[in-house]
Amino acid sequence: MNCEIIAVGSELLTPFRQDTNSLYVTDRLYELGVRVVFKTIVGDRKEHLVDAIHTGLRRVDILILTGGLGPTEDDLTRQAVATALKIALKRDPDLVAQLYARFAGRRIQMTSNNTRQGDRLENATILDNANGTAPGQWLDTIYGGHRKLVILLPGPPSELEPMFDQACMPLLEAALPVSFIARRTLKAAMIGESAADARIAPIYQKYGDVETTILAHTGDIQLNLLCAKKAMDLAQRRVDELAGKIEEELEDFIYSSQAETLEQIVLYYLGMRGATLAVAESCTGGLMSQRLTSIDGSSRSFLGGAIVYSNDLKTEFADVPRTLIDDYGAVSSEVAEAMADGIRERVGATFGCGITGVAGPGGGTEEKPVGLVYVAVSDGKHTDVLEKRFLGGRESIRQWAAQQALDMVRRRLM
Amino acid sequence: MNCEIIAVGSELLTPFRQDTNSLYVTDRLYELGVRVVFKTIVGDRKEHLVDAIHTGLRRVDILILTGGLGPTEDDLTRQAVATALKIALKRDPDLVAQLYARFAGRRIQMTSNNTRQGDRLENATILDNANGTAPGQWLDTIYGGHRKLVILLPGPPSELEPMFDQACMPLLEAALPVSFIARRTLKAAMIGESAADARIAPIYQKYGDVETTILAHTGDIQLNLLCAKKAMDLAQRRVDELAGKIEEELEDFIYSSQAETLEQIVLYYLGMRGATLAVAESCTGGLMSQRLTSIDGSSRSFLGGAIVYSNDLKTEFADVPRTLIDDYGAVSSEVAEAMADGIRERVGATFGCGITGVAGPGGGTEEKPVGLVYVAVSDGKHTDVLEKRFLGGRESIRQWAAQQALDMVRRRLM
Repeated sequence: MNCEIIAVGSELLTPFRQDTNSLYVTDRLYELGVRVVFKTIVGDRKEHLVDAIHTGLRRVDILILTGGLGPTEDDLTRQAVATALKIALKRDPDLVAQLYARFAGRRIQMTSNNTRQGDRLENATILDNANGTAPGQWLDTIYGGHRKLVILLPGPPSELEPMFDQACMPLLEAALPVSFIARRTLKAAMIGESAADARIAPIYQKYGDVETTILAHTGDIQLNLLCAKKAMDLAQRRVDELAGKIEEELEDFIYSSQAETLEQIVLYYLGMRGATLAVAESCTGGLMSQRLTSIDGSSRSFLGGAIVYSNDLKTEFADVPRTLIDDYGAVSSEVAEAMADGIRERVGATFGCGITGVAGPGGGTEEKPVGLVYVAVSDGKHTDVLEKRFLGGRESIRQWAAQQALDMVRRRLM
Repeated sequence: MNCEIIAVGSELLTPFRQDTNSLYVTDRLYELGVRVVFKTIVGDRKEHLVDAIHTGLRRVDILILTGGLGPTEDDLTRQAVATALKIALKRDPDLVAQLYARFAGRRIQMTSNNTRQGDRLENATILDNANGTAPGQWLDTIYGGHRKLVILLPGPPSELEPMFDQACMPLLEAALPVSFIARRTLKAAMIGESAADARIAPIYQKYGDVETTILAHTGDIQLNLLCAKKAMDLAQRRVDELAGKIEEELEDFIYSSQAETLEQIVLYYLGMRGATLAVAESCTGGLMSQRLTSIDGSSRSFLGGAIVYSNDLKTEFADVPRTLIDDYGAVSSEVAEAMADGIRERVGATFGCGITGVAGPGGGTEEKPVGLVYVAVSDGKHTDVLEKRFLGGRESIRQWAAQQALDMVRRRLM
């Protein structure tokens, strides 16, 4: 079955805001074997909304509308659906009573405009909203001689997501033909998208029944495998078989076969070994530390470190000898090594990591151009160091450098 | 004039990718007084694409298609437009010659599928692509008895953006009725969206001719003002007048009236005063440093600092007395102050900033719950300290804390 998602709200047509609900909904629909074939974004104008609803009903089986269910004059989704389907919209006294009770429970006087949220479409099933006032609505109806499902959901993700999971998914499962979906997500670091695709395309192209999607972002590749079958074990077997062959081909570029982030994997390996990490960051300025500390429980393995942006701080916090900086420059393999060694010892960690480079856009020279980055990892006995030339702007270079450093620590721990 | 943007590409219908080109295009169209009233996302299937084109031509004046201009079988935008408009699509020998020349210039043998990018729609104006192979196309045509502009643009932002600026904007300006657009963006920190709106709504509601949009994100508010008039000075006067009144109302919550980021403003003030900053971050784990170092030239004023995630490091790098941590706990105003003082002195900076808190989800107690954060700023003589309770998950608390710290430094410098 095909689906169109219509996101309603004038703010979604500005340069500043984007519809993200459709990503969540698409992801959940995948599991039911439902494909989203159109997405439409429309503002809070009734004639535009009615146009979008007619257009959607003409071309798909399932039409999902997000947003426009609130209490204000701008919230027009209910009326627009009533107009497009030529059905009645009536205030439901039970729904209104529930709204009053909800406000009373929070000791707030409900303003009268809120009663509009008690308007119910003819024959609609109400989808309870546990996290807000506007209920969703579910219609199983006929349009142009064909059966159509029309689903109205609230705009705030904190209301939409639980409503979709708890109220919509069971109704959809009951309404749809049975099929079982298996999924796997593999992740790889520090390999280019085209290089990875050139190696694995001959493999996944032999699995026409497994949908393979490749996504790349600054040194991070995500491979999504999805297969729908009449039986779960059949679907799972196909996905696992293809995942195994891809893992074999990409070898240790693959860092996760369960969708973890690279920082999660690094912390997991550190924890397994009872090891700790300290970091001295120059050009990345806190990016690597920030990624590690974004993970709950990271304090068990990540002790901290220093942002040694100036040369003095490289000496002060990571004990980099001043002469080394004078002789080789702050951006050099020698200084990266000394940063990794120094921070490790100062912090008393099992491993130390040092990152130094030219993030640009200024500060590059012929000898040390923008994008030149050195990353070092030390355990006190042995220090690995890598020289890299990253392309792109300042932010891209910083992100590549942090990704490279995390990947180097991972490889050291493997 | 109204516009619809159609983003073409099956990957844009997955849970993993989003169309972002439309944000850029919408922003540029704002300046011409053109409003985007629909956005559609459609996959690489010709019948769906033709449907979307017909739908768009029926309801808007300007139809912009992004993506689907490449050399592969999946790139169907040109054919779909030809089908929908019932016009010819012919290989243009001049365009093909240019493609061959482009590849030859890079010493690459062009594969024959690339010649498809030389297919030109009947009467189309070619939009040169300085950063890729697929040229754009511009059609000024009639559909259903009305004049329509149909614009085909490549999908990669690095190709679309310069093409839109250099080739499309002049053609649009020539094609559209003259009007002048003035814009201003005000930014405010550490005030809630509803609190800000309650204060300024009575003001901007009196300016019906100025479109006011409010966007909020973890302690950061952006107010966009836009006015279209027949003369530039009229539009500018209205926008400036409203901006002035809003600035008066929100006072020192406003940190920028020119769309700068908070970290840019902090670095700007530091630079103006010839002052420097050092940071000791605990719960934010590098977030504040990372934001500062993301700005080009930040090394002039931001010296660096330490990620003092463990208690030992608070002592090692920021000279926080061990007894202070034992007596008051690592999350306390006393430790935040000591971190600010200590890092300032160790680094030799004009100002020191210390951040300590409970980011959660674990680690909270009744006395020190998740979300409790202390931020301190010191100049060696005087230390300000703030206690805050932030709501939300780990990432939200960390972001609020970093925003609070940057804002505190800003206020200290004002």
